[in-house]
Amino acid sequence: MVSSELVISQAEHKSRIEKIRDQLKKSRCAALYLTNPTRILYATGFSHISTERPLALVIPQEGAIFMMGPHLEEDHVKQDCALIEEFFSYPDYPGITHPILHFVNVLTRKGLAGSKIATDYVDGAAGGWGYRGPSLRDLLHQAMIVDGKDLVDTLRLVKSRQEIHLLRESARWAEKAHDILMENIAPGEHDALIGLKASYKALTEMMKKLGARYRQLKWGLSPVVVGCRGQVGPGSAVPHAVFSKRRIRRGDVLVTEAGVEVGGYTCELERTMIVGKPRPREKKYFETMLRVQDAALGAFMPGVACSQVDAIARKTVEAAGLAGALRHHVGHGIGIDGHEPPWLDPGEKTVMRPGMVFSCEPGLYVPGLAGFRHSDTVMITKDGMEFITEYPRSLEDLTV
Amino acid sequence: MVSSELVISQAEHKSRIEKIRDQLKKSRCAALYLTNPTRILYATGFSHISTERPLALVIPQEGAIFMMGPHLEEDHVKQDCALIEEFFSYPDYPGITHPILHFVNVLTRKGLAGSKIATDYVDGAAGGWGYRGPSLRDLLHQAMIVDGKDLVDTLRLVKSRQEIHLLRESARWAEKAHDILMENIAPGEHDALIGLKASYKALTEMMKKLGARYRQLKWGLSPVVVGCRGQVGPGSAVPHAVFSKRRIRRGDVLVTEAGVEVGGYTCELERTMIVGKPRPREKKYFETMLRVQDAALGAFMPGVACSQVDAIARKTVEAAGLAGALRHHVGHGIGIDGHEPPWLDPGEKTVMRPGMVFSCEPGLYVPGLAGFRHSDTVMITKDGMEFITEYPRSLEDLTV
Repeated sequence: MVSSELVISQAEHKSRIEKIRDQLKKSRCAALYLTNPTRILYATGFSHISTERPLALVIPQEGAIFMMGPHLEEDHVKQDCALIEEFFSYPDYPGITHPILHFVNVLTRKGLAGSKIATDYVDGAAGGWGYRGPSLRDLLHQAMIVDGKDLVDTLRLVKSRQEIHLLRESARWAEKAHDILMENIAPGEHDALIGLKASYKALTEMMKKLGARYRQLKWGLSPVVVGCRGQVGPGSAVPHAVFSKRRIRRGDVLVTEAGVEVGGYTCELERTMIVGKPRPREKKYFETMLRVQDAALGAFMPGVACSQVDAIARKTVEAAGLAGALRHHVGHGIGIDGHEPPWLDPGEKTVMRPGMVFSCEPGLYVPGLAGFRHSDTVMITKDGMEFITEYPRSLEDLTV
Repeated sequence: MVSSELVISQAEHKSRIEKIRDQLKKSRCAALYLTNPTRILYATGFSHISTERPLALVIPQEGAIFMMGPHLEEDHVKQDCALIEEFFSYPDYPGITHPILHFVNVLTRKGLAGSKIATDYVDGAAGGWGYRGPSLRDLLHQAMIVDGKDLVDTLRLVKSRQEIHLLRESARWAEKAHDILMENIAPGEHDALIGLKASYKALTEMMKKLGARYRQLKWGLSPVVVGCRGQVGPGSAVPHAVFSKRRIRRGDVLVTEAGVEVGGYTCELERTMIVGKPRPREKKYFETMLRVQDAALGAFMPGVACSQVDAIARKTVEAAGLAGALRHHVGHGIGIDGHEPPWLDPGEKTVMRPGMVFSCEPGLYVPGLAGFRHSDTVMITKDGMEFITEYPRSLEDLTV
C-alpha cells in the first residue's frame, strides 16, 4: 500500500460489494439502487459531481454492476471505474423523455421491474439543485421498493485498515496545514485570507511530497481546508459561523479547523486559540473545555454506549457550573462524510467497537465573548482509543 | 445600494415573503415549510451550513415567521436575521426525542397541525449526511401536506435588479480571478495549485477593494473559485473531471472555470485555453465551439423557448459534422444555485423573459484529445441578451 496511490484498493471495493450482495441475499432483494454520491464512492471508488442530473448505481444480487446517468459522465466512468461494468446514459436533464423513464426502461430490460429493490432514495431519482421528477415507486408498480441505506451504512461504521491509513495520512497533512495557519495568524489579518493562503501552502507541500500517489476525489477548490471559517472573536461563539465581518484583533479567541481529503476520507482537527495574553475569563472557559474533552476522551472504549461519552462530558460541564454554555453534543462518526453515524449524543444507543472513528469536540459558547472548542479525530482500539489527529491542546501551545 | 453591503436588502426579502404569502392565500395553504438552504436563503437572507441536523423555516400565511432547528443555530439566527421572528430549538440530533417530533409539537402549538401546509420536502425533515427520521406526512395525519417548491422557485426564475447587480459584481471578480489564473498557467505547473494560488490572490484584491461591503454567505474555503478542476489535456474531455493526475504540458488544451460568490449569487465564466501553438485539429474544434456559442447567443431573446436555443446550437454542431462530440445541453439558469431552472435543453418549454439569467456553454468533447467549452453568464433583456461575464473568447486571446 505504501508505494501505491492513496485511495481504497479495488480489492477492498470488491469485498465491500460482496458484503452488500450477501445482505441482498439475506434480505431477498434482487438489487441495490444507490443514488447518494458518498455511498456510490464507498461501494465503487467512483466519485462524481452530483447535480440536477439523476444518476444511480445498481448492484444486482448477481450479474453486472451498472450505472444509469447523464451522457456527460459516461467517459468519466469508463476511465475511472472498472467495477462499473455497464453505463446506460440519457442525453441530459430534463430531456424530451425524463431521465427516470430511461432508468425504468433499463431496470425493466434487466428484469428488475417486478423485483424487490433496496434503495437509498425511495422517493426520487437523486438529482439535486433544480431537479424535479416522479418517484421510482410511482413508476415501478410491480416492484417492491424498500429502504436500503443500511446495506451500505452499517459497513461504514467500523473502518478498515485502509480507511484508517487514509485518515492518518489526512491527519498528518491537517496538522501541517494547521502549523502553517498558526504562523500566519496575527492582528490585522483577515481569517479568510490567511486560511486560503495556508491551504495553498500546505497543498503545495503535500503534492510535492506525495506526487502521483495523491489524487483528489471530491469536488472542491482545494482538498486542504484550513482556517477559522468566521470563528474570530465574538464570531467564535457561533459554532457554524461562515465569514468574519472584521479582521483579527489582539485579544481575540479563534476557533480553527483543518481537514484534508485523502482518498475520499477527511479527518477533523480544530483548535481554540488566543491572540495575545488570555484574560482570566477566557482561561476559565478554555481550561474547562479541555477538562471536558479529556473526560470524554477517557470514556472512549469498546463496549461503551455512544450516549455515555456525551453524558460524561455534560456532567463535567455541569460540575463546572457552565451547562448554559453548551450548544451541541460531543461529536460524530467521521469518514467519507464529514459527519456520519454513530453520534456522540444522548439519543445514540450504538455501542463502540474497535475501528470506529469519531470526532471528539465538546464546545462552550459565550455570546458576545467567544467559543471554546477543540476537535480531535480518534479511533476506538481493542482496549481504549488512539488519536488520529496528534496536535498540541494546551492554552500555552495555542496562544499566539 | 452602491455604498452598502453587497447582499440582498431586507426590503427585497420582505417583498419576496409577501409574494410567497400571496401564493399561500391563492392556494389556500396555511404555511410554507422550507428546508432547502437555497430557498431559505432566498426567502430570508439567512445562510447556514446544512448537516444531519434538521432545520426548517416556516412562513405562515399570517403571523410570525419562525424557524425550527438545532440549538447551535439559535444565536446565529438571532444575530443574522431579523426577519426570522422566533426560533424553536432542539438540543441536537438524533436526541432522546427525535427533532422532527419537536417540529411537530411546534407546528401543533402554532395551530398548523390540521392545516394545508406547502413544503419543499414532503418526505422528510431535511437533514443531510447521516440523517434518518420519519416523514412529516406520517406524523401530521390531520394536515394536508402539498408540494410547495414552486412557491419559491417561480420567483427565482426572473432576477431582480439587486440580483443582477450581485451577479455583475460576481462577474467582475471572476474576470479578475481568471486574469490571474492565466498569468499562472505554464508547463510544469499543476492546475490544482495554480487555481488555489489565483483564488487567493483574487480574494485578496477583492477584499481590499470591497472591504466591509463584502460578506461571504455560503460555506466554503473561498468565495473565489478559479482553476481547471482537472480539465487539463485529455482530462478536459471529461466535463465533470475533478482532479488532474499530471502537471500541465506544452500543447495541452485546458478548460477553466471561475466563479465568485457575492451575496449568495455566483456567475459562471469558463474558457477553453491552449498552452502553446494550437494544432489544426484543436483549432477546428475550438472554432466550431465558438461558432456554436455564437449561434446560441444569437438565439437568446424574450419569447423564445429555452429548447430553441439548444436546438440551434445542436444544428450548428451537426452542420459541422461533429454531433458525436456533444455530451450535454447548452446551459442552465443560474443564481443562488450553480444550476437552476430553466434549462437550455430539448425538454424545456419555458419561454425566455427579460431578467432571466443563463449560462451559455455548448461543449465539444474528444476522448483522448480534449474538451472545448466556453461558458458565459448572460441576461435576457427587452430585445435580446446582455453579457454578465465580459471576457475574451477568441483562440488568439486564450493561447498562452
